[in-house]
Amino acid sequence: MLHGGNFYGFTEDIKKELLDFSANISPLGMPDSVKQAIEDEMANALHYPDPVSGRLSKAIGMKMNIDPLWVICGNGAADIVYRFVYGLKPKKAVVIHPTFVEYEEAMRCIETEIISYDLCRKDFKIREDILDLINNDIDAVFICNPNNPTGVLTKKSLLLEIAAKTAQCGAWLVLDECFLDFTGREDELSLVHELQGNDRLLILKSFTKMYAIPGIRLGFGLCSNPEAIEKMRRAGQSWAVSTLAESAGIALLDEDEYCTKVISYVDRERKFLETELEKIGVEYIHGNANYMLIHCPGVTDLYERLLKEKVMIRTCGNYKNLDTDYYRIAINDHESNKAMIERMKKVLV
Amino acid sequence: MLHGGNFYGFTEDIKKELLDFSANISPLGMPDSVKQAIEDEMANALHYPDPVSGRLSKAIGMKMNIDPLWVICGNGAADIVYRFVYGLKPKKAVVIHPTFVEYEEAMRCIETEIISYDLCRKDFKIREDILDLINNDIDAVFICNPNNPTGVLTKKSLLLEIAAKTAQCGAWLVLDECFLDFTGREDELSLVHELQGNDRLLILKSFTKMYAIPGIRLGFGLCSNPEAIEKMRRAGQSWAVSTLAESAGIALLDEDEYCTKVISYVDRERKFLETELEKIGVEYIHGNANYMLIHCPGVTDLYERLLKEKVMIRTCGNYKNLDTDYYRIAINDHESNKAMIERMKKVLV
Repeated sequence: MLHGGNFYGFTEDIKKELLDFSANISPLGMPDSVKQAIEDEMANALHYPDPVSGRLSKAIGMKMNIDPLWVICGNGAADIVYRFVYGLKPKKAVVIHPTFVEYEEAMRCIETEIISYDLCRKDFKIREDILDLINNDIDAVFICNPNNPTGVLTKKSLLLEIAAKTAQCGAWLVLDECFLDFTGREDELSLVHELQGNDRLLILKSFTKMYAIPGIRLGFGLCSNPEAIEKMRRAGQSWAVSTLAESAGIALLDEDEYCTKVISYVDRERKFLETELEKIGVEYIHGNANYMLIHCPGVTDLYERLLKEKVMIRTCGNYKNLDTDYYRIAINDHESNKAMIERMKKVLV
Repeated sequence: MLHGGNFYGFTEDIKKELLDFSANISPLGMPDSVKQAIEDEMANALHYPDPVSGRLSKAIGMKMNIDPLWVICGNGAADIVYRFVYGLKPKKAVVIHPTFVEYEEAMRCIETEIISYDLCRKDFKIREDILDLINNDIDAVFICNPNNPTGVLTKKSLLLEIAAKTAQCGAWLVLDECFLDFTGREDELSLVHELQGNDRLLILKSFTKMYAIPGIRLGFGLCSNPEAIEKMRRAGQSWAVSTLAESAGIALLDEDEYCTKVISYVDRERKFLETELEKIGVEYIHGNANYMLIHCPGVTDLYERLLKEKVMIRTCGNYKNLDTDYYRIAINDHESNKAMIERMKKVLV
């Protein structure tokens, strides 16, 4: 399944001019330290990667103040999703809709029964009634916070209730926090402090989005349950994380200043886009990530219209509980955002 | 499961001095073009990788004169092993012993029943009687050619018989040719020409060994069955191959001269090692890869003895049908090979 746009379907000429609003990555580009770290690491690519990514796991543990043994690094966070599914084999799982489709695609491989929780399209918020779906028959609940493709945050108090109920029912809470750093309140909103004492909680984190390195492949999972970590390790190959990605990750953990810059930049541009979308009468969902869900009732060809104007957005028709007139747009750099709004105005008149 | 030695368990000081004979990679180091390709590609790591690695698949197709749609690239060949197992779900499979352990580790995840074919320890050759194990109940047969950890080649005529019988029984032949390029007769010995007309054949290839890039993660599978390719794609995440690895692979396909150099170098050093091992009375299996299986009857601590001398070899006690007095040594650069022989002589007196 393609996510983001089908960027690779275009010729080099078109790619050069295309404004990519389909992939949710930092608008400030990757920090220079990534390039340096990878160049410095090239000589070590002669060796097999460390199967447990020990150096990176240790650095993550230090940074997040958790046991490095709770860290499982992967070839992107998506790798951890598949390892969880193949390793822990949930038979029945609760999935909210719409959300990141890879959870369900992974579970389709082992024929997990999916219990859908459809978000109300007014605000796409998860409500207390999700708790009613969690019982002893459920093996896993997948929550993406902030959710993709809506950007909507779930209240922490509700997340804690979900975590308590899943643990009580012996079910896993797989909490995808891959975009939580964009809120600027990661420490306050994360459930990372709940790992201690909850051995049915798996938190997913990614380097891809904040640091604009989707092509390098690096993400990780956090879990205080050593047996589950071991099952996830055994559920896939031994050397998932390249030495280059591992060294990039170690360098990126020092990029606090870059993160702060990205967070305020995205915040400012989100406000800009919200204002401009209102002006041109496009409905949007107010979110807290580096992307926005928009709705153009009845307009099912906005992707094609914008593509003609060399802007690529993300169609959302393939998400459950969304229709073909929903789209996701990344929050990009200011010049691109301005250009995109101009072109959207043009194609919507 | 660790393969190669536990390189990452050592301090930086020890790692610097350690002669690594545990990992089977080209003794000539990675070609300069890899470094250049990765540096040039860094800017593109801003984009998600192409899920089908289109540019690399096309380049492989051109080079091997096959349909690019028959190529599935992976995060190392091991990624393809897991995708095959999860995607095609063999219930019962024939595995030779000893062989690369990742096949069985992958199948353990889906509880495949393993039918063992124990190689005769005299020469570790596969014989005709393997055909007797292949029947309509078998879903897959795994053959590594040349075999790892023995380096022993299987006769092409027998491989063709195995391929015919598996196809006839509706079983898959998973033929791991990851070390076949070291023979210098890849084109003659490969079953790549059998792909056309056999839709139950999956051939595994790797960039890791010949080009000394295990840390970059790049391998691929070849299969003329589009449904099976699709199943393997769906059996894992969408972006397994990093953009950096893809660009490295494209560059490496032009490195014919480097390969020729490696092949003759390894050939010469294999002869050197065989001669020297004979002199010091160490049994070895004559193979055709860039590693050798050695046997030191009764000496079960050769790994530890050599480690004290700063030489790391591969213990083989974890392979089925091998005992703890078997070891695998890589064929390294000449200076290292000489040093290793000296130290082996020292620790074996």
